[in-house]
Amino acid sequence: MNDHSKGAFTLPGEAGYEELTLKMAEKWGADVIRDSDGTKLSDEITRAGYRIYSTICIIREHNAFAQAHPDAQQQSFLYSKPAVALGDRLEIRPLEGYFNEQFEINDSPEAMEYWQVWDRTVGRLLGNDEWEYSEGTVTLKNCVPFHRYSVSFLAWRVWEEINMYNHTTNHWTSEHLRQLDPRHPAAWEYLQQWLKDWCEANPRTDVVRLTSLFYNFVWIFGDDMRFRSRFVDWASYDFTVSPAALKVFEEEYGYALTAEDFINKGLLQATHRPPTRAKLDYMDFIQRFVAEKAKALVDIIHAYGKQAYVFYDDSWVGMEPCGKYFPSIGFDGLIKCVFSGFECRLCALAKVDTHELRFHPYLFPVGLGGLPTFSEGGEPEKDALSYWLHVRRALARQTVQRIGLGGYLHLTIGQDRFNDLIADIARDFRRIKALHEGGAPAKLPIKVAVMHYWGSLRSWTLSGHFHETDKNILIHINEALSGLPVDVKFVSFDDVKRGALKDVDVLINAGRQGDAWSGGNVWRDSELVSEVTRFVYEGGSLIGAGEPSAADGGDTLFALSHMLGVDMDKGQYACHASWQFEAQSAPFRVAEEAIGKTDGIRVTSGDTQVLLEKEGVPALTLNRFGKGKAVYMGGFSYSPAAADMLLDILKYLCGADGKGAGMADDPMVECAWFEKGRTLLVMNNADTRVTTKLSCPAGSTEATLEPFETRFVEM
Amino acid sequence: MNDHSKGAFTLPGEAGYEELTLKMAEKWGADVIRDSDGTKLSDEITRAGYRIYSTICIIREHNAFAQAHPDAQQQSFLYSKPAVALGDRLEIRPLEGYFNEQFEINDSPEAMEYWQVWDRTVGRLLGNDEWEYSEGTVTLKNCVPFHRYSVSFLAWRVWEEINMYNHTTNHWTSEHLRQLDPRHPAAWEYLQQWLKDWCEANPRTDVVRLTSLFYNFVWIFGDDMRFRSRFVDWASYDFTVSPAALKVFEEEYGYALTAEDFINKGLLQATHRPPTRAKLDYMDFIQRFVAEKAKALVDIIHAYGKQAYVFYDDSWVGMEPCGKYFPSIGFDGLIKCVFSGFECRLCALAKVDTHELRFHPYLFPVGLGGLPTFSEGGEPEKDALSYWLHVRRALARQTVQRIGLGGYLHLTIGQDRFNDLIADIARDFRRIKALHEGGAPAKLPIKVAVMHYWGSLRSWTLSGHFHETDKNILIHINEALSGLPVDVKFVSFDDVKRGALKDVDVLINAGRQGDAWSGGNVWRDSELVSEVTRFVYEGGSLIGAGEPSAADGGDTLFALSHMLGVDMDKGQYACHASWQFEAQSAPFRVAEEAIGKTDGIRVTSGDTQVLLEKEGVPALTLNRFGKGKAVYMGGFSYSPAAADMLLDILKYLCGADGKGAGMADDPMVECAWFEKGRTLLVMNNADTRVTTKLSCPAGSTEATLEPFETRFVEM
Repeated sequence: MNDHSKGAFTLPGEAGYEELTLKMAEKWGADVIRDSDGTKLSDEITRAGYRIYSTICIIREHNAFAQAHPDAQQQSFLYSKPAVALGDRLEIRPLEGYFNEQFEINDSPEAMEYWQVWDRTVGRLLGNDEWEYSEGTVTLKNCVPFHRYSVSFLAWRVWEEINMYNHTTNHWTSEHLRQLDPRHPAAWEYLQQWLKDWCEANPRTDVVRLTSLFYNFVWIFGDDMRFRSRFVDWASYDFTVSPAALKVFEEEYGYALTAEDFINKGLLQATHRPPTRAKLDYMDFIQRFVAEKAKALVDIIHAYGKQAYVFYDDSWVGMEPCGKYFPSIGFDGLIKCVFSGFECRLCALAKVDTHELRFHPYLFPVGLGGLPTFSEGGEPEKDALSYWLHVRRALARQTVQRIGLGGYLHLTIGQDRFNDLIADIARDFRRIKALHEGGAPAKLPIKVAVMHYWGSLRSWTLSGHFHETDKNILIHINEALSGLPVDVKFVSFDDVKRGALKDVDVLINAGRQGDAWSGGNVWRDSELVSEVTRFVYEGGSLIGAGEPSAADGGDTLFALSHMLGVDMDKGQYACHASWQFEAQSAPFRVAEEAIGKTDGIRVTSGDTQVLLEKEGVPALTLNRFGKGKAVYMGGFSYSPAAADMLLDILKYLCGADGKGAGMADDPMVECAWFEKGRTLLVMNNADTRVTTKLSCPAGSTEATLEPFETRFVEM
Repeated sequence: MNDHSKGAFTLPGEAGYEELTLKMAEKWGADVIRDSDGTKLSDEITRAGYRIYSTICIIREHNAFAQAHPDAQQQSFLYSKPAVALGDRLEIRPLEGYFNEQFEINDSPEAMEYWQVWDRTVGRLLGNDEWEYSEGTVTLKNCVPFHRYSVSFLAWRVWEEINMYNHTTNHWTSEHLRQLDPRHPAAWEYLQQWLKDWCEANPRTDVVRLTSLFYNFVWIFGDDMRFRSRFVDWASYDFTVSPAALKVFEEEYGYALTAEDFINKGLLQATHRPPTRAKLDYMDFIQRFVAEKAKALVDIIHAYGKQAYVFYDDSWVGMEPCGKYFPSIGFDGLIKCVFSGFECRLCALAKVDTHELRFHPYLFPVGLGGLPTFSEGGEPEKDALSYWLHVRRALARQTVQRIGLGGYLHLTIGQDRFNDLIADIARDFRRIKALHEGGAPAKLPIKVAVMHYWGSLRSWTLSGHFHETDKNILIHINEALSGLPVDVKFVSFDDVKRGALKDVDVLINAGRQGDAWSGGNVWRDSELVSEVTRFVYEGGSLIGAGEPSAADGGDTLFALSHMLGVDMDKGQYACHASWQFEAQSAPFRVAEEAIGKTDGIRVTSGDTQVLLEKEGVPALTLNRFGKGKAVYMGGFSYSPAAADMLLDILKYLCGADGKGAGMADDPMVECAWFEKGRTLLVMNNADTRVTTKLSCPAGSTEATLEPFETRFVEM
């Protein structure tokens, strides 16, 4: 019998710690050894019989070339802080306020064509004859006194952002790494040759681990330490821009993009906001470019008999694993660093043979938030356990092939609790993976569709990790869904209009007015509203959370208010009373602390049942509409109890009991039933010992579980 | 020497309690005796040597006429709750959900011309051939399935609203009173004759106290007790409407109003919202009509040698004491019931000879909120003191001629504490009034302008009493200002563009995005923004509170953000950091509990000083702009300490010390300096004994004040 002690685990090796590398590979059951950013593998390691991953960041580590070809570097549009004109002349230094180690003004003739100066008070684009630029300063003529003006301009990005982060956060002192734009013909020739040379020079590498492709997510630094990390969006495309790209776009799409398409009054184009048509076109344009160039690199790697895996972070922009061009690249594997369950589901969706999760914490003295992990005061085993509990329930639902770690292996010395925990996690992972190999676990007959602007392109994720997006209610819902025994798909509003609700039982819309998740002005589209109305009237269920379907201009703020039975008062209901209510008990389990309150929510119908109120505001409601039902939640914070509540709501809405998928009576315990192996995977999410009844199609039993225990109960 | 024991006090007399009436008149120093709604005066009272006010409500108490002329009754536009079409036909019963003792459908041919049916899903007005009405039901043909439809219609108002309130709240059982529309020719003839007859029959009446004119403020009842008081707006004009009025409007203004001008998607036209052009025209139209008809009544009253006072409440709509037509009516006096200081200032503004305040509590078993006052459990002296403390400080700033009470005098029997307190208040009032007669109290050289959509038309008030509007930050600011030794004026945005800031030191904008007080989309007007920018740049000061100058569509949400140094994030700043800050000490006194927090407020400049934060959100900030300054407050709740803070902020902004107007060192003590009488009026707002230094231009002294004491210190 397989003791699940070996395989499917990628260990970060470290030259100089050869003995430790081999010892830890044994302890954790590694079959692969990799290098990391800042570590090397020695011959002793690469010859030890393990498969070898070698990390390359294709667009950096070429400072000599970058210095010889400064116009091959990457760029971005930036905008100056609007300045108030006092007379008819005004001087603006556009780069003022930005971190001058990250940016340099691009005043080349090609770039200057794209510069813009705006009167932001009236929203007027100034003519080119109304301003001039010289040596870092734009001088405006003919200003209107007391109007505010700003300059949109192109800047070179002269410090690769991940390297910049490591220097500024972790006090690295090595040379600042620059990054090349593969759109630059000489750079692209150079990079291909460099990769060929690299493959030649690294015969023992089995897998080239690309970290990652070409364009970093957007990360703009300011010069003032009180305004340092000015803008960060994990899924924005602003760092892909260049005059050359804009010219090609214009040729291909028949219209020109301008600085304002990116700058958007200084608000930029964050992923959390509904995109413009121009932005969608531009994203498609970049995705095609990235896929084409990535495929060329993968072909080189394959030509050397190696596999190509890509790390899905950092310079990932344009790759879009759920997008339509990704499969054409030909990657052999996708590696996703994970803190959360939704990231596991996201990784598993990509069409590659190998899906690998890189667990946290990274073996590094400090973690992402700057708190100690593998240094004085850190408790890496606590962090690892906490992330594992999130990921475990998602792994129960969807298979991935591998897990691993990254960083400096020597930091594990003396961390026995951490090292033991990782060994346990690796063993549990292998056993779960083995169960999946016998077929997917049982699901309840519940099909959920999460509806937002991005649809399947942003399946599971919003923009980055949970802790970067946790002010958004939807990421909490996605995280809860990631471990539930139900079908989940992500649909856009256009998908809904094209019939995507056909096989859906429960439709979810969760966000804040005007964001991409709630949908913004898309809710002024009567076709969409009618289709959702039809869906619910005919027996579908709707879950709205936060400010669902909120848009100005209608007779209600929530376009779906007539089904939800609640609306939100932003002042427009001045002098109007709302229906008085008394909270009544819910027909499903309610995790009160998981439900939040949205100020201004009011009951708009005498039929609406308020199931929970917070400080007088309806926080959880239920309303019937035709044959369907609608649940409103003012807020939703992920926790195991919240996930249990969400499952209970879904079961109530769909009239399902949970037994078919395996279930525990205790809400802190989750199950997955693997029919072929006749095994009930039982996961205790509680930090206490729990005794609970377990049920599944093969019968029922009782079990007492240790805190956080993973149990494989053979029925 | 005057002991201030008599005069300027209006006592509510009561037939059957003649001895009590004369005793209380003596105790409270009354010079006038009045009747009230529900009480009569006997000959014994009217012959006792007092001036006599007689209350009449001109448009009610004519049920016989109303029954004979049902088309002379008043009306309103109402709308049906939108109903979802399931097929191509839909039936709607428009009156469903309304209180059928208040409303009856008006399906006369003149009224039907104004009915409308809307597809609210797309915002389409249906053609008259797409629906028909019969016996209480509108039947729609050719509906789009799953669209929502609603009917806007005219309804008779068959129960005068104040009478309806008294019946439904106080369990009155008398006949429901109806109300006549003076626009109906026969009703108007009848009312004039009725008034003449009344004057003939009441020779001993000195003052006809009109309670009030023709059209009640809007108060719409629903049939479900959980949705009873559906809509109430003290300053809305919706109850003035009729087909006849609409026809005249069309002739005079050259365009027709429609139901939708009133219904506004079911939201109606609340005073708290920015008005449409049509609403402004309609208000002007009604004001002219009301003034004309009121003048005719006043002329009748004058012809009988009586004076005409008007009570400024209930059916006051269209009278607008701060409007341009009010002086033409020729009233001799204006009587305002007051809970608050701002109401005192409001009353004092009107161009009449006599301004009279009717104090609260009303001599009635229960108060407005349904709580006991002159019944078991009530403490009327506490209520009276609390209102007096609000009014006293406003009386110190601006003179009114009279005070008084209303209601059932017999309820004062046994209420010795209340009776003694009223005697004290009356004495203090007379003494303050006497001081004013020697000239206005000293003011600081600070001119404040409060800027909102309504400008001077809504000086001091928003829409009704403090407790009806206390969710609006501006009413708290107005209440604080009502007792401060500064000049205050109320300006509209148009006024500002026309130069109203010329003599202003401090400009205040306080409200919530989209309301009439903040201003809504008026902030997209660059001319307005530039003018305020100029004002501050050149040395003016700006106080913004709540969501000042907030409007969608600009590069900042607050159009004045560049001066305030803060903006508000409603999601549009997704992925943008705000400036980090540390709160620093303020250059003025801060009443922390009076300052509120507006979620989403963020610092937008490194120069912004945060003076107070609440839960991480900047709640009070200071920023410099040019020669001027801007203060932002997330919220402001009126209290004596809040008023003290506001004064200290104004003094700081204008570089003034307070001595010129008289001041106490203790923030709970307010002063007013009357130069001619060389008297410092000293008011202790604290419920404790306070010892404080007092300063004024004539010198300084120290005093120990009893809780809430009013002291007249002669210097």
